[in-house]
Parts: sequence; structure tokens; C-alpha cells
Amino acid sequence: MAFNDLFLRAARKEQTERTPVWMMRQAGRYMEEYRAIRSKHGFLEMCRTPELAVEVTLQPVDLVGVDAAILFSDILVSFTGMGLDLTFAKGEGPVIHNPIRTTSDVERLRVADPIDDTGYVMDALKILRGELVDKVPLIGFAGAPFTLASYAIEGQGTRDYENCKALMWGNPKAWDMLMTKFSDTVIAYMQAQIDAGAQVMQLFDSWVGYVAPRDYERYILPYTTRVIAEVKAHGDKVVPEGVPLIHFANGATSMIDLVQKAGGDVVGIDWRLDMKKAVELIDPKFGIQGNIDPVALFAPDEELEQMVVEILEAVGTRPGHIFNLGHGIHKTSDPEKARKMISYVHTHSDRIRGGAVS
Amino acid sequence: MAFNDLFLRAARKEQTERTPVWMMRQAGRYMEEYRAIRSKHGFLEMCRTPELAVEVTLQPVDLVGVDAAILFSDILVSFTGMGLDLTFAKGEGPVIHNPIRTTSDVERLRVADPIDDTGYVMDALKILRGELVDKVPLIGFAGAPFTLASYAIEGQGTRDYENCKALMWGNPKAWDMLMTKFSDTVIAYMQAQIDAGAQVMQLFDSWVGYVAPRDYERYILPYTTRVIAEVKAHGDKVVPEGVPLIHFANGATSMIDLVQKAGGDVVGIDWRLDMKKAVELIDPKFGIQGNIDPVALFAPDEELEQMVVEILEAVGTRPGHIFNLGHGIHKTSDPEKARKMISYVHTHSDRIRGGAVS
Repeated sequence: MAFNDLFLRAARKEQTERTPVWMMRQAGRYMEEYRAIRSKHGFLEMCRTPELAVEVTLQPVDLVGVDAAILFSDILVSFTGMGLDLTFAKGEGPVIHNPIRTTSDVERLRVADPIDDTGYVMDALKILRGELVDKVPLIGFAGAPFTLASYAIEGQGTRDYENCKALMWGNPKAWDMLMTKFSDTVIAYMQAQIDAGAQVMQLFDSWVGYVAPRDYERYILPYTTRVIAEVKAHGDKVVPEGVPLIHFANGATSMIDLVQKAGGDVVGIDWRLDMKKAVELIDPKFGIQGNIDPVALFAPDEELEQMVVEILEAVGTRPGHIFNLGHGIHKTSDPEKARKMISYVHTHSDRIRGGAVS
Repeated sequence: MAFNDLFLRAARKEQTERTPVWMMRQAGRYMEEYRAIRSKHGFLEMCRTPELAVEVTLQPVDLVGVDAAILFSDILVSFTGMGLDLTFAKGEGPVIHNPIRTTSDVERLRVADPIDDTGYVMDALKILRGELVDKVPLIGFAGAPFTLASYAIEGQGTRDYENCKALMWGNPKAWDMLMTKFSDTVIAYMQAQIDAGAQVMQLFDSWVGYVAPRDYERYILPYTTRVIAEVKAHGDKVVPEGVPLIHFANGATSMIDLVQKAGGDVVGIDWRLDMKKAVELIDPKFGIQGNIDPVALFAPDEELEQMVVEILEAVGTRPGHIFNLGHGIHKTSDPEKARKMISYVHTHSDRIRGGAVS
């Protein structure tokens, strides 16, 4: 099989003959092949064991037909090296047992070393590049400083962010120290992933949709901007064509103007923004990743196909579109539906984009 | 004390000398006076006992200084009359024990009678109008058809809406029947509240932020539009100046253009949309309600005041601004902070709007 570089070319905003597609959380619980491995291993154990991480990373490439592989891992794996006591409770998501609340909590936080603390990630990436040489490109990723900081402060998932915002507004010096430590950690971590062979990087700002635009601009954007600039600069040194960076600020569609100020190559959008509007609001210098409702995989085939067509037609022949779900695939999704969605994307984008390349 | 009609005039989009303010969930757990009553009574029992509902409705008017009272109740109180088995589990929110999943489930659903099934709401409103005659205007409210339907289908709170959307896309006839039954229930319920003396109505579409704009437009907006039109028409018959309607589509700020198509008088917005942008995006024929981050009540005074000023200055002297939180007040908020916020709104809007009236 020849290497399928469709995703890589789209991430570089080259004109492509069809639209590449992958799915956030594509290596995950919706696949029985994943569940078979997960039943025997803890979640963090899987992240920390390159052979297991590699195996589940490859599953959707071989079985679902996506145009890119994304390393199986978690945005919080650097926490342990920073001195944060992270566990994943059965079915309950991450818990940090010593959350950050005070200036001295922030002071004791270390900047993680990507190799000493998360070398297993780099090992997995190196193995994956070998495994994927005749398949598809490899995506590395990290959580953005705000999302990591909010987890570290709240200690678990929340919809409220009271502690996080109270620190942000009430203790700007501690906030700056905290966000700087997370930024430094993320920069080194993403740069190491590039060194280990990740061909495209995605920065997930998963929880930034809970802050007001004025707070995003003042307390978050400067850090995200620095992270993206330093990761991009490193990619330019390591890879002649550069390493494209996708910035996904989940839930932030009503401040997509600010999100773009952070830089990068591709703006990821969730399903709350109509793609026709996204094409207007997002500067043509950026590619666009997204944005079908993840629950669309529970729709009848005709409706699912119709949703795919609407998105593809809204984008038209604009270069740099990467089809994706607007958020992670749900664990009860049917893999057969995912395969159908991917085939709809390929068939219809072939029709829509075919003329643009010939 | 003279009747404070500031809120009523703003809701009618008259120019006002200052900006009225109230808070979603202002009668609630953040107040110890509320908790004292709640500790002795079940949540639904409080909704169904006019004397208790009246007492907690009045608490924030007397103790926090809001410019409007909103009936203490719940958007789901009509469920029992519709044949849905609703309970509130301790600290866990609503549970519907016989959720809607099939066409025959939809068929067995009744349209609730506002008097037979929820007469206690009308009784509470009538008592409240008497109690409030020298105080502030009285707001009635209901949940919008989609939010009610999604609860009835999912059976509990969710972030996923898989069952709800699967029915919406997969069984359009059942969806139409379901949304029509909820629309009929809501129309009759809101009209009865107007008859009972509610001076302004608010329609809460709390969960509509989880649907894509294309789905909102096709499967939800037509029903919301009908509800608003019929409630408005009834208000015009009952009250010479009409009964203003506030439409709050939570989380829907990236499709605020569609939300406006539903009609009404005031568009409620959450805190994810910058007020400067809201003023541009929302047709001047609408008032605007919102939109400070509810967590701002955890900020230091100076930052809270600054956030208030930014919102008020973004609105300027545009008529019809009602200051509110962008979502319900959090249960751990300090009532003293709420009082301060209200005083910042009054002081600064006096300064900003004073000239517009003189």
C-alpha cells in the first residue's frame, strides 16, 4: 500500500483532490478491538506502555479507514512529572488528588521533562512512524495551557470552573506563574513529539468554551499564542516543510476571531458553528478542521450523508479542509456508521473538489 | 415604597434612566434563607405549594435588591400532567422514570392542562402580584419545547443527547408529534401564567446549545416560533401594552441569527458572546438580556465592577438592556457579592444612561 498523504497536504493548506477525514477519540471505546485491550489494562497503563498505545492507535487506521492516525494518549499525561497526583477513576474520568489552589501550590509545581517524564509517548511515536510508513500521517497532540491549568486547579471535570476563575481573577501573579509552567511543559512536550516523528500537531483547548471572550483574550490567549509560536518554530527547524499545527478551541465558536489570533495553520471548530459561517469568519490563511455533530453517527444513513454533503458544499474548494467530528466520537457509536461517514466524505469531496485539482 | 417598573419598561424597549438587573435562579440555594426552607421541604413540594413558592420568590427581592421577581418553580412541572413520571433525586437533578423513546411513547403523552395540572403555579402568581404591588414586576416562565422534549427523551441531564437526536433525525413524524404536544402544553401554560398576572414571560431553551444550527433551524425553530407567536398574541389580548417575552437560548450564541427568527421582545444571551458583538448581531428591534459570567461573583470586587462596566459600556444607551448573569447563579455564590454586582449595575448605568433620558 502506498502512503496516503492526503491529510498532510490538506494540513499544509495545499489544494487536494478530496477531503481527508479523521475523528477525535478515534482510538477508543466505540471499537470492540479497543475494549478487548482496555478490559485487561488500566487507562494510564495503556498510555504509558508504547506497545499498547501503538496497537490501539493503529486500530481505526486499519479497521475504520481514517486518513490520519493520532497517538493514543491523554492530555494529562504530563501531570505526574509536574508533581500532580493523577489517577483515572473507573468510568469517572481524571482526578487530581493534590489540586492547585494557592500560590505555594503553584510554586511547588515542576515543569515536566518530556523525555524523563513522558518518554513512553516519544517511544510510541517512533514505533508508529515505522508502522505507518505505508499508511497515513501521524498526529501528535497536547492540551493547551488553560485546559491543563483548569484540570489542575479543579482537580476533576467540572462545568463551573469556580476555583479556576477565582485564581485567574484574584491572583494574577500566581495565574501567570501557573500558565507559564504549563506553557513551558506543553512547548517542550510538543517539540519532543515533533523530534519523535509526529507529522502534524494538534493543540486541544477543550474547556476554553467556558470562559468569556474578555477573559480568553486577557488571561489565556497570550499563553496559547506563545505555545503555538514556539512549537511552530521548532517544527520549521526539524522538518523542511514545517509541521502543521491544528488549534482546536472547543466550544469557542462565538469568539473564533480571538481564537485565530493564537496562530497555527488549521482552526478546529465544534459543531455549533455553521460551516458556511465558519468559512466567512475564519481567515483564508487558515485551514479548517471539522465539524459534524458527533451524534450524527446515530442518524439514519441518508440524514448522515446529507449532513456530510452540507459541510463539504459549504467549504467548496477552499484548500485546507480536514473533515472531523465537532468533538470526540461517543463511546456507544457504531464503527460501521463511522466507516459510512468516511466513505460519504470521500465520495462527495471527490465530486466537489475533483475539478479544483484537474 | 413605590412600584419599581424599571424592568418592565426595559423589557418593552423603552429608554430607561438606568439598567434593571435580575439573576437567573435568583431564588435559590446560594441564599441561606432559601436553604432554611428547602431543608424542610422537597424541591417539587416547594414548587407545588404556593405559600412556599411565594416566600422564596420574594427573598431575593427583599434581600438582594433585584429589579424583578421570577416565580420560584421548575421548567419540568408540567411533566406530571403529561404522564411523565418525574422526581428530583437528592442533589442529582430531575429524573423521568418513563422516558419517551418510541412512537407509542409519544402517542400516550397528554397535553397538560395548565389549571388542572399546574394550578398551584397560577395560585402562586396571583398571590405574588399582590405581594409585589409596591415592589417590582413579576416574571413567569416556561421551558421551550426542545429543552422539555430532550429531558423527556433522555430521562435525565446529559451532555450527549443521543436518544433525543436519534429520534429527531430517525423518526420525524414522532418528533413532530412530540414537539407539537410540548408546544401545545407550553403555549397553554404560558397563556395561563399571563392570565394569572405574570407581567413578563421568559422562555428558557436551556439545552439548545447542544444542537447544530442546521438542526435548530429544521427541527426546533418552527415550534419555538409558534410558541412565542401564540403567547405574544394572548398577551396582547389580556394586557393593553402587551406582555414582553424574553427568549433565552442558552449556549446558542454562535447561531444567534437563527435564535432571533423565533421572535419575542428580548434576546437573552449567555456569557460566551462579547456584548460588543451581541449589540451588532442582535437586531435593534430586540432588547438584550445578559450577560456576565455567573462565576464573576467569585472575582474580587474591582474585577467584578470592571466586567459590569464593560458590558454596560458595550450596550451604551441602546434601549431594552436587562442586566443578568449569562446563566443561573451558582449555589456557592456569596449573596453579598450579588448585592455588590447589582449596585455596580445601577451606579454605572445611571452614569451611562442618565444623559439619554434627560
